[in-house]
Amino acid sequence: MSTPLRLGLAGLGTVGTGVVKIIQNHAGLLAARAGRPVEISAVSARTRGKNRGVDLSDYGWEDDPVALATRDDVDVFVELMGGADGPAKAATEAAIAAGKDVVTANKAMLATHGQALAEAAEARGALIRFEAAVAGGIPVVKALTEGLAGNRMLRVMGVMNGTCNYILTRMENAGLPYAEVFEEASALGYLEADPTLDVGGIDAGHKLALLASIAFGTRVAFDHVELEGIERISIDDIRHAADMGFRIKLLGVAQMTGRGLEQRMSPCLVPAGSPLGQLENATNMVVLEGDASGQIVLRGAGAGEGPTASAVMSDVLDIARGIRLSTFGQPAATLAAPIPARATAAAPYYLRMVLQDKPGALAKVATVLGEAGISIDRMRQYDHADTTAPVLIVTHKTTRDALDHAMGGFAATGVVVGHPVAIRTETL
Amino acid sequence: MSTPLRLGLAGLGTVGTGVVKIIQNHAGLLAARAGRPVEISAVSARTRGKNRGVDLSDYGWEDDPVALATRDDVDVFVELMGGADGPAKAATEAAIAAGKDVVTANKAMLATHGQALAEAAEARGALIRFEAAVAGGIPVVKALTEGLAGNRMLRVMGVMNGTCNYILTRMENAGLPYAEVFEEASALGYLEADPTLDVGGIDAGHKLALLASIAFGTRVAFDHVELEGIERISIDDIRHAADMGFRIKLLGVAQMTGRGLEQRMSPCLVPAGSPLGQLENATNMVVLEGDASGQIVLRGAGAGEGPTASAVMSDVLDIARGIRLSTFGQPAATLAAPIPARATAAAPYYLRMVLQDKPGALAKVATVLGEAGISIDRMRQYDHADTTAPVLIVTHKTTRDALDHAMGGFAATGVVVGHPVAIRTETL
Repeated sequence: MSTPLRLGLAGLGTVGTGVVKIIQNHAGLLAARAGRPVEISAVSARTRGKNRGVDLSDYGWEDDPVALATRDDVDVFVELMGGADGPAKAATEAAIAAGKDVVTANKAMLATHGQALAEAAEARGALIRFEAAVAGGIPVVKALTEGLAGNRMLRVMGVMNGTCNYILTRMENAGLPYAEVFEEASALGYLEADPTLDVGGIDAGHKLALLASIAFGTRVAFDHVELEGIERISIDDIRHAADMGFRIKLLGVAQMTGRGLEQRMSPCLVPAGSPLGQLENATNMVVLEGDASGQIVLRGAGAGEGPTASAVMSDVLDIARGIRLSTFGQPAATLAAPIPARATAAAPYYLRMVLQDKPGALAKVATVLGEAGISIDRMRQYDHADTTAPVLIVTHKTTRDALDHAMGGFAATGVVVGHPVAIRTETL
Repeated sequence: MSTPLRLGLAGLGTVGTGVVKIIQNHAGLLAARAGRPVEISAVSARTRGKNRGVDLSDYGWEDDPVALATRDDVDVFVELMGGADGPAKAATEAAIAAGKDVVTANKAMLATHGQALAEAAEARGALIRFEAAVAGGIPVVKALTEGLAGNRMLRVMGVMNGTCNYILTRMENAGLPYAEVFEEASALGYLEADPTLDVGGIDAGHKLALLASIAFGTRVAFDHVELEGIERISIDDIRHAADMGFRIKLLGVAQMTGRGLEQRMSPCLVPAGSPLGQLENATNMVVLEGDASGQIVLRGAGAGEGPTASAVMSDVLDIARGIRLSTFGQPAATLAAPIPARATAAAPYYLRMVLQDKPGALAKVATVLGEAGISIDRMRQYDHADTTAPVLIVTHKTTRDALDHAMGGFAATGVVVGHPVAIRTETL
């Protein structure tokens, strides 16, 4: 058997531990598939002594991930620390400078610095691979970059943040308010250290921006993702949606149109019986739409030790097998600067707002919608006890621009209390 | 830009024409992704003059695919003729002998001769790639071979014959009998020249055997697939299943157990609301279950010009990018000879049979089931006009062996008319 592939593994949290287990438990299997052994030379983490349930005694230890990344006995630097900057970026840069290949699960780093890192790696003849950064165990980066390489991609869509999906399905199944489920998720350790990354849609937006780069041959443009989180979704929204046969999902859509690259990540109503509507808990789903392939749907666990470690190992095995691919599917220097375009496709919208309970309030709201060119499919005023009245409106198909115009007009009516909630309906 | 990758394309039916269109329409895109142009040097088909809606005038022509496969200006032989033997096999062997890489959509050839062909190719340093042979546009071979390479695979399942799924969903949606829908499908050109390949489950069995080889590191063992087709499924079966909340799908399952490799392809009842139950028409779905990844579900078009050509191009682009992988994910010589094992996992079964309408008939059938250790969940005798009575039985969980024992016993009762239909229930 030929030369082993030697890894330096930085980050021994859930995913890192999962990678160690796979390498220890499946040594023979991996060697048979790769044609060479896959070994760990050394590891790095914040605290050395901690019991992680795996035996690390055969591996070298580095307190400093930069030192790990540049060790002579490391061929591939596996970065599982996370964080857009700081040690993860420093160590990745050091690995590249030393000509090492990099496997990372770090969507924040790549969504922020992916172009510069990919250019540096390619200039040095090194790889950066990131299957584990998007949709956990689903091999979606590979499916898109390689499996659909013969397609002009039309659209990439997906539910890619398991935590948000957990919160939304838990709210619906248990009938609990957002704040309560948020606390539960926090206690269960499902949330990032900065929970805004999850519930603000940022983490999912990072993933969408990475897929869009591959799909459309453009530089990663996370700054241009139209982002909306799930913080303002109430249990009432979920109930109203259910009454109409819909569920609310944090859905990302990226597509290239004649006007430019559209990328949005926002809560959407999707039919409850559709594949997206049926997604429960932390499951992810990605839809890749190519001009030849049609819609390819991929579903699987979006997070967790096993699934994410499986994705890391996919990249490691590729490298062990001698597969050398550009980070984003074509040389980084050839990626186009995307022209960001606002999503303009029309869709029905769900609107929930609170009105002052006085004569003519509903008429004023209806007038604002009419003036924005938005026609109403259904409107319902709910029972109420105090001096305000909750109102639910479902519009016919309209654009986000027209809707934003109306949203601006609501304030001027003087009868709308607080901020209305607007949720797009996708009938995918 | 570096040296072009030059193809010799044998077979200009739907898929071959689709490949020509992608190469002509997406030349720039493919070159950007592959880092080199992808070109067609020459083509071959049965009739030269036929108008195929694509311009072939820039390409060389060979009447003989063997001559095409060995041309000096061909780097990759793309075999889209089909057939387990004959010209497809002869030309594939010739290409390999000449050191050319082969991309094929030919599941019959690989399920029959895959081991010998892969060994020959690997001895010669050539590749055989076959993404298009399984599940049309779904990049499932790549997902399994590469995307899940870090997993010990537990199970591979799928609905992989679009024609059977079309027939079954059409029967249900239109309330038509099997024979009528079969004729429709035939008129629409959905059936293979030998329709038994489709409706007998053979084509789907070929695909399952190919995936099982990759998943479990074993030689392709199509001969050991327990095969059952859809020919005996009646509209009554479909209706009874629907009444119980199920749909009938031709489902393949391969798994490695302590006793050996189980492979079966047979009609099954699946919950109507499940992802598998919702599959309509020619859509395919494959479930890959790894020990780390968990269940990864892939769905897409299982046939057709665009989807299958997309899969062919995935292999072509891999080769253009310098990706070199063993046909079945590890060197063919290292694949184990599988020990075939009969599927033993218990499941509820659906039984439909016709009894002579005389006293004690039902009791005799119930006795046979009881003696085989099979308990009855539900039993129903339907209205009838003549001297025979249709009976529907749903069993509690039982094994195929116990069921076959009972099936043997039914004949001896003297009250069962014809052959009972038995369909397994999967609650995946």
